[in-house]
Amino acid sequence: MPQIKDIGEIGLIKRITRPPKDKAILVGIGDDAAVVQTKEGFQVLTTDCLVEGDHFRNDWFTPEQIGMKAIEINVSDVAAMGGRPTYALVSLVLPNNLQIDFFDRIYDGMWKACERNSLEIIGGNMAHGNLLVISITLIGEIEGNNYTLRKGAQPGDSLFVSGSLGNGRAGLRAYQHNLQGFDKTKKNYVEPKARLAYALNIAPYAHAMIDISDGLASEIRHICSPSHLGAHLFLDKIPINDEVREIARILGENEYDYVLYGGEDFEVLYAVPEENVQHAKGIFIGKLISNPEIKLIHDDKEEEIKRSGYDHFSNDF
Amino acid sequence: MPQIKDIGEIGLIKRITRPPKDKAILVGIGDDAAVVQTKEGFQVLTTDCLVEGDHFRNDWFTPEQIGMKAIEINVSDVAAMGGRPTYALVSLVLPNNLQIDFFDRIYDGMWKACERNSLEIIGGNMAHGNLLVISITLIGEIEGNNYTLRKGAQPGDSLFVSGSLGNGRAGLRAYQHNLQGFDKTKKNYVEPKARLAYALNIAPYAHAMIDISDGLASEIRHICSPSHLGAHLFLDKIPINDEVREIARILGENEYDYVLYGGEDFEVLYAVPEENVQHAKGIFIGKLISNPEIKLIHDDKEEEIKRSGYDHFSNDF
Repeated sequence: MPQIKDIGEIGLIKRITRPPKDKAILVGIGDDAAVVQTKEGFQVLTTDCLVEGDHFRNDWFTPEQIGMKAIEINVSDVAAMGGRPTYALVSLVLPNNLQIDFFDRIYDGMWKACERNSLEIIGGNMAHGNLLVISITLIGEIEGNNYTLRKGAQPGDSLFVSGSLGNGRAGLRAYQHNLQGFDKTKKNYVEPKARLAYALNIAPYAHAMIDISDGLASEIRHICSPSHLGAHLFLDKIPINDEVREIARILGENEYDYVLYGGEDFEVLYAVPEENVQHAKGIFIGKLISNPEIKLIHDDKEEEIKRSGYDHFSNDF
Repeated sequence: MPQIKDIGEIGLIKRITRPPKDKAILVGIGDDAAVVQTKEGFQVLTTDCLVEGDHFRNDWFTPEQIGMKAIEINVSDVAAMGGRPTYALVSLVLPNNLQIDFFDRIYDGMWKACERNSLEIIGGNMAHGNLLVISITLIGEIEGNNYTLRKGAQPGDSLFVSGSLGNGRAGLRAYQHNLQGFDKTKKNYVEPKARLAYALNIAPYAHAMIDISDGLASEIRHICSPSHLGAHLFLDKIPINDEVREIARILGENEYDYVLYGGEDFEVLYAVPEENVQHAKGIFIGKLISNPEIKLIHDDKEEEIKRSGYDHFSNDF
């Protein structure tokens, strides 16, 4: 009988998706966040969690960093919708032997990230369990009707990213291999910051937007698939830090694998039409095309990207 | 250094509570759900989770029942605020070896409970972990300004409950001791139903309301403490099913311990002023008094209730 790991995240999402009945549900399961219409505008809602051993290790992260990351990954999802987070609910599973000081410091980290992003924790729940799990739900609002979905992209749109990629995976690899130095990349990994202000600025001009939490290959596919489009990605335009290149070199790995199939970069990827390109402050990395194939272009060579991104159920953390 | 189990849930909640800054936050951490003011009214938000081994066991619950319970316990929290749930977000931690059929049936159960309570799942998240955790966030709305808090009770208010108590603990004990029969009580335990319609009817007439998820002693305290009140509970008014009494008798336990210190009954407890008593369709169990002590009254004897209810961190499930 098939198990979760045989089907993967995408397969599971397909199984649970039902068309919304309530017409106020503009976006349901399958985007970075849900969007519902209210009398006063649009509300955005999302949930994401951190699991001990899968998303963090206590020897790499301080408790404050665990708390901050739990909030920031959710802010990133709200930001990718063009939303501004307002309230957070925190559902915790806590082992009995967790030290109170550790618990307090997780909360300090959560509040710190809330303050940075101008939101407040308004409720939550605590339960016992043998594994520390921090599940966060964020509620946010959208100004005007500037919400940005995965769908909405058009052929000819230019693709931009808000910053350098591959940091998340490179930071993880640096910790896994106990590499000395690479402080900037390691810090990016343990203290990611959602690109909230950036995303809010570009939202009115973008046809589609997504945060890069599961690797560029996967996120490009999420932008292309709903509109039956393809993309040309220009390899030498993809921004990669020197530290990331150096980590890949030392470990005999490919930095573009970090970018394409890694995860946890928390930059945003967005598609803008020609007339709005002057508003895009990010790094141009490619174009959307009508032909539904995603190609990586390097010098005169083309390579089709077939693999998807990070799969939460095939994780060798 | 102190650990979670040394402090307990109440101690933890005290540590994390901060006064809200945003004036739209009418109720923050510390009630059954949060309430925020919107331009169009009041929104209610809550989160609660089920943890494998702590809240359910796969040999007692069918996957559908796990899914239903995950939704119903949250609906119960929204109902206790006088709210009507509209949307759910589902955050899952899934072991790799979980069978797809089991996963599908959990979702079937969640949707079934959603349909029963007229709400929809609009989003969620899936992560890998070695323990099955189902964390649900519900959003709901409040009609007019009929939200019912834990605080708000007045001396002289009558206390009512919506139905018989002790079922949750008695059902658990029946499963733990492998008792044959007691089908009604067992079913109440594995398939609790939130008292949504009931709570919505009484909300306009109640000074305070709470759901009885952690045992009557604890919930009475939550109603009394914010208003610095006490209560007289009349032992022989407390509704207890024959099956529950029989289970207690067989196991040599006290059925009033099930009621007072058990949990998972999911009835509502509410306080109504004299002039609204004719609207209370429930069972009268006591009165609120100015003197801040909670007494159980039986014949001519009085007994002060000192112990609190179910503590999630001292669970011997």
